[in-house]
Amino acid sequence: MTRDECKFFVPGPTWVRPAILQEMTRPMIGHRSTEFRELFRGIVSDLKPLFATQQETLVMTCSGTAVMEAALVNCVSRRLLVTTCGAFSERWFSIAESLGLEVDKLEAEWGKPVDAEALSNHLRSRRAHYDAVTLTHNETSTGVTNDIRALARVIRDESAETLILVDAVSSLAGIPLFFDEWGLDVCFASVQKGIALPPGITVLAVSQQALARAAKVPYRGTYFDFLRYKKSADEGGVPSTPSIPHFYALAVQLDHILRGETLDARFRRHETMRELTIRRTAKYAKLASDRAHASATVTALAPVKDSEEIRSEMKKRGFTLGGGYGQWKATTFRIGHMGDIPVASLETMLDALEEVARA
Amino acid sequence: MTRDECKFFVPGPTWVRPAILQEMTRPMIGHRSTEFRELFRGIVSDLKPLFATQQETLVMTCSGTAVMEAALVNCVSRRLLVTTCGAFSERWFSIAESLGLEVDKLEAEWGKPVDAEALSNHLRSRRAHYDAVTLTHNETSTGVTNDIRALARVIRDESAETLILVDAVSSLAGIPLFFDEWGLDVCFASVQKGIALPPGITVLAVSQQALARAAKVPYRGTYFDFLRYKKSADEGGVPSTPSIPHFYALAVQLDHILRGETLDARFRRHETMRELTIRRTAKYAKLASDRAHASATVTALAPVKDSEEIRSEMKKRGFTLGGGYGQWKATTFRIGHMGDIPVASLETMLDALEEVARA
Repeated sequence: MTRDECKFFVPGPTWVRPAILQEMTRPMIGHRSTEFRELFRGIVSDLKPLFATQQETLVMTCSGTAVMEAALVNCVSRRLLVTTCGAFSERWFSIAESLGLEVDKLEAEWGKPVDAEALSNHLRSRRAHYDAVTLTHNETSTGVTNDIRALARVIRDESAETLILVDAVSSLAGIPLFFDEWGLDVCFASVQKGIALPPGITVLAVSQQALARAAKVPYRGTYFDFLRYKKSADEGGVPSTPSIPHFYALAVQLDHILRGETLDARFRRHETMRELTIRRTAKYAKLASDRAHASATVTALAPVKDSEEIRSEMKKRGFTLGGGYGQWKATTFRIGHMGDIPVASLETMLDALEEVARA
Repeated sequence: MTRDECKFFVPGPTWVRPAILQEMTRPMIGHRSTEFRELFRGIVSDLKPLFATQQETLVMTCSGTAVMEAALVNCVSRRLLVTTCGAFSERWFSIAESLGLEVDKLEAEWGKPVDAEALSNHLRSRRAHYDAVTLTHNETSTGVTNDIRALARVIRDESAETLILVDAVSSLAGIPLFFDEWGLDVCFASVQKGIALPPGITVLAVSQQALARAAKVPYRGTYFDFLRYKKSADEGGVPSTPSIPHFYALAVQLDHILRGETLDARFRRHETMRELTIRRTAKYAKLASDRAHASATVTALAPVKDSEEIRSEMKKRGFTLGGGYGQWKATTFRIGHMGDIPVASLETMLDALEEVARA
């Protein structure tokens, strides 16, 4: 195996290039130092094209789940609508409940995307005012990509005040996303998926409208308080001690994504990986989700043979695949094809998988 | 400079040994995998002697400030007392306010420790019931170590139900601490101080009584919910995707602290560094804090010459010192002598400092 060959196809944490891991070994610096401020400013500036935004971009040292919670803490005083189509979109619901918020749910079947017309009907028929609606760009449990542009338009058509909170955990840097053009208010991604760093930090974009809303929420706590991050960012830093090794690696990786591979080429590579995965597995496994909305970063497959047996046999050959998730745990397995995974590595894995899954 | 020579004397993030940084470059694994569960179980088990506890030990991917907030979210429904003697102990107060809690403050002068008799008098004279009292083991802004044993005894003597929440950010693994013997309920330390890892995760101990209290708090949110971490720990993991590189490094570093250097030798080395720092700087700087409570991990000094000029001159020689903090910003500088810093490196730095500060 060469240094840049990948045998790890879990849908997050994804494979990290050895050169990027090496960036994490740079010596410590103070997080109030000039060196750190320069590092931070470069990152914040490179996050803007990644989210396609001119608004606020931030970094928080915590998992994506924490930033989901932060979005609710800063943007919802009373009631929200959660749209679901799998396990991760449902997480918004459980977090909202854990905060004591009033929460409604619009459910799509597992394997299908959230339907824009159903959302429109729901918003029209309900008389309740929603502080926010949550969306999930790419549902990692089923391998479905939602049409955020269409869903956001429906929400905006109904109300100018309802904020749009988007989980882009497994889409950002792998599937096109346009924060400003689509009119989103909070959008975030932990870095261990499309950005292809080790987990530990989460990047986010926050609209001016979301910041204005936060200013009206009296008790936002401290660690999740967007206004505290915004104030520190204006001064060139972060409010609490950050994971400095992740910041080192993120700066180099953003440079690679934007100016090395380039975003367009990255999106095309992810589409190639999706098509390759679906085509090469069709003989021995059913695509578990809707073909028209199949994700470019993760594919959930329902194989003819037992899926745990397939994973275990692949493990013996050195390949790690993702298991099924939630209600699909027993019947599916998942192939993560996100981040920096080379197409050639995916092909090598699919060769082995064919032997294992067809036999 | 050899690989294991340190020229970085900031009181956190502290210097990290190159071998430990290298641990962070190990390949990714899934956080639900057998490999991760083994890694996690080893860490949790090694944290018990570090905190001197048989109770719950946990790891959260976030800064120490976040775990301060978590302690309040899980343990305080209504009112608490914050004891302060510097900038970091005061942080408890601002976090409590940001959560909308009722909070009283018992203040000691900067440079002095919190007085046990004053605490006793306060608790006796006030009729209010406190859900919790916060303590700070080592105040990083002034270089003062509080007598947690004595303070905890006073609190326990007054009430069996008041929980004792202790910030051990800059003491754990550098200054002796006995969680069970002292009767503490929550105690935490981010890893970039005494444990000498890069920042990014925080370790904590939680008493059975604190877990029982959390179970009675209705809306604890999700990311800070101790019971969620406890449930996952029982299953051999963490509830949200953790910073896997930090877990790799923490496992190796705990092994080094407990079975390599050993805790007793580590405490003695920190005491040696304190004595050396105070003795060697006496000719040109006044110890800013109370001599009898001077910290073994950080020393705040009020020099005869301008402190910023001294730091800047030392920087030219390759040495990084900490600046003054809060109300002592202009008049002091700080020497961090914590974590894995070799005594010989401290001596080399003090040689240079003498030239710079006396001249």
